[in-house]
Amino acid sequence: MSILPVIMCGGAGSRLWPRSRAARPKQFLPLVEESSLLAATAARLGHAGAHLELLAPVIICGDGQEGLVSADMASAGAAPQRIWIEPFGRNTAAVAAIAALEASALAPDTLVLLMPADHHIAGPDAFWQAIGSGLPAAKDGYLVTLGMEPDGPETGYGYVQRGAEIGPGVHAVANFKEKPDAATAAAYLASGDYFWNAGIFLFRADTMIAAFEAHAPAILAACRAAVGAARQDAGGARLDPEAFAPCPSEPVDVAIMEKADRKAVIAPVRAGWSDVGSWDAIAALKDGGVTDEDHVLALDCSNCLIESDGPFIAAIGLKDLVVIATGDSVLIMQRGEAQQVKTIVETLKKRGRRDLL
Amino acid sequence: MSILPVIMCGGAGSRLWPRSRAARPKQFLPLVEESSLLAATAARLGHAGAHLELLAPVIICGDGQEGLVSADMASAGAAPQRIWIEPFGRNTAAVAAIAALEASALAPDTLVLLMPADHHIAGPDAFWQAIGSGLPAAKDGYLVTLGMEPDGPETGYGYVQRGAEIGPGVHAVANFKEKPDAATAAAYLASGDYFWNAGIFLFRADTMIAAFEAHAPAILAACRAAVGAARQDAGGARLDPEAFAPCPSEPVDVAIMEKADRKAVIAPVRAGWSDVGSWDAIAALKDGGVTDEDHVLALDCSNCLIESDGPFIAAIGLKDLVVIATGDSVLIMQRGEAQQVKTIVETLKKRGRRDLL
Repeated sequence: MSILPVIMCGGAGSRLWPRSRAARPKQFLPLVEESSLLAATAARLGHAGAHLELLAPVIICGDGQEGLVSADMASAGAAPQRIWIEPFGRNTAAVAAIAALEASALAPDTLVLLMPADHHIAGPDAFWQAIGSGLPAAKDGYLVTLGMEPDGPETGYGYVQRGAEIGPGVHAVANFKEKPDAATAAAYLASGDYFWNAGIFLFRADTMIAAFEAHAPAILAACRAAVGAARQDAGGARLDPEAFAPCPSEPVDVAIMEKADRKAVIAPVRAGWSDVGSWDAIAALKDGGVTDEDHVLALDCSNCLIESDGPFIAAIGLKDLVVIATGDSVLIMQRGEAQQVKTIVETLKKRGRRDLL
Repeated sequence: MSILPVIMCGGAGSRLWPRSRAARPKQFLPLVEESSLLAATAARLGHAGAHLELLAPVIICGDGQEGLVSADMASAGAAPQRIWIEPFGRNTAAVAAIAALEASALAPDTLVLLMPADHHIAGPDAFWQAIGSGLPAAKDGYLVTLGMEPDGPETGYGYVQRGAEIGPGVHAVANFKEKPDAATAAAYLASGDYFWNAGIFLFRADTMIAAFEAHAPAILAACRAAVGAARQDAGGARLDPEAFAPCPSEPVDVAIMEKADRKAVIAPVRAGWSDVGSWDAIAALKDGGVTDEDHVLALDCSNCLIESDGPFIAAIGLKDLVVIATGDSVLIMQRGEAQQVKTIVETLKKRGRRDLL
């Protein structure tokens, strides 16, 4: 039974301004390594091992991003079997439905590995080992999610609580939990039964379609119509905008996972995962001093992330700061304040500064 | 008896990088107000009052700066009677000698008011009142300096200690003191007899020439030769490089003031004076929030100076920082670290980054 990897590539990444921009959002940027997050995600597929029978991946991206997708896939040496182009975003439930419909057209019991384009995974072998351990549950009709082992009381992630073991390294899901406050996160960590919900899913196409029929039929109907009326061109397959417009916009976690009966979590997964969701997350991933002497000179600075692909940055006596400079903008923030970057972007929108977005 | 204002305009201002650059150093920049420091200095002459009989000023600048000088003087509505152009810098003793020679050519007892181009004076009326109170001593053959009333235990300035009163608001100089450490600065402040040595001098031309003959004859001889062989062109009067080259390079404080017998200090002067010597000094002068919405957006920042004429700056959660951005460079420093800016400039020189200097 083969696995169809489906890469969700439609995000805006505004929390990573000023590097992430409307014309080139987060997933197309080399934020952690030398290749972009999408290229790294595509390259990761090459490490799966033949026993997993991975098919060529499907990409679902936003309108206007198809050129960036093709370039990144080519740089990763990965040929997608299809690029789906959304005329506008309808959140991840719609993406999951399109993924299930695409896989179902191959064979109803095709497995889908649905994953975001913009995460970082330091240990791909552990990741694929985890996927392998989830296969029996997925084949058996579970909607399977990945539960990443927490390495701290993180308040920026949703959590999944494991229940009874249903196979080696796989448990029934007891509960999904929203982002917790600090005390709750500490309690989760202490209990050992809570894991970071990575938003990576493994399921049989017919299982997911049945779940949509039960819990979110309007989303499935709109996606089925939009796929049916899609128009193929050189860039990819374009969902029909008129058919797609009425699709409700919901996260797959809310529309399906929280409501489905048979759901499982692979846990603990120890794969060095990060959602690369903020400059704080990137600062945590990138440890160590300044290496880019062409752009940065730092004196007596500690615990700082300082990067520029634009102006030269001279830093003196800084502590716990993040400095990100591009050709036209510089973000300077205290570490721990990364959630405020959205406020910066919203303020720029209000001021009509499209040149900076 | 008329007063010849002589403006020392040859500085490099490297402590104010990245705004101050080789092609346009500190004195030509609007660092405190909307006009440049030189233009503000020239405009200040207009507030002197007719009783002081100020002549049109003389400017002494570096080679290549004559265009900037002319433009700033024009913007201030002040016509210089001469622009002296040094082929290379020989410190302030040489400038004082040239000033004395220039004034002596008008009449040996002409008074000279020698002042830097790059200081800020918030209260020009108090400044001119102080100059007026120093006139009798200067006419009587004293080398007169201005002692600014300290408003804190400043370690960044030299001090002058007053001795016996020799006239209203004018004292003999007891001692000149180098920049003190913090404890010494606090003791100076407590004593009430120590004042900031502003590097502004009032003297009769013949008094200063006699002092040079007694204490620094080599400087006087080189300057006399360089002035004698000067070449006038459209930009100004160019000191002869060959004659000027052997001139010893010394501050006038060291070469003359510390050694002269009859010296006086006008003190206390309460004129809101600053040497605008560092970003810390400018941050202290400029209080209050961000007003340049085109270039800066600051969230939850306190006690920061954030300015840009280049990239857009977004700042989050910063405290006690100075951020200065130009088209090609950004300085980010903790307040109190301004002396390290010189290290930045020296490092850029070592790295061959002339583009940034």
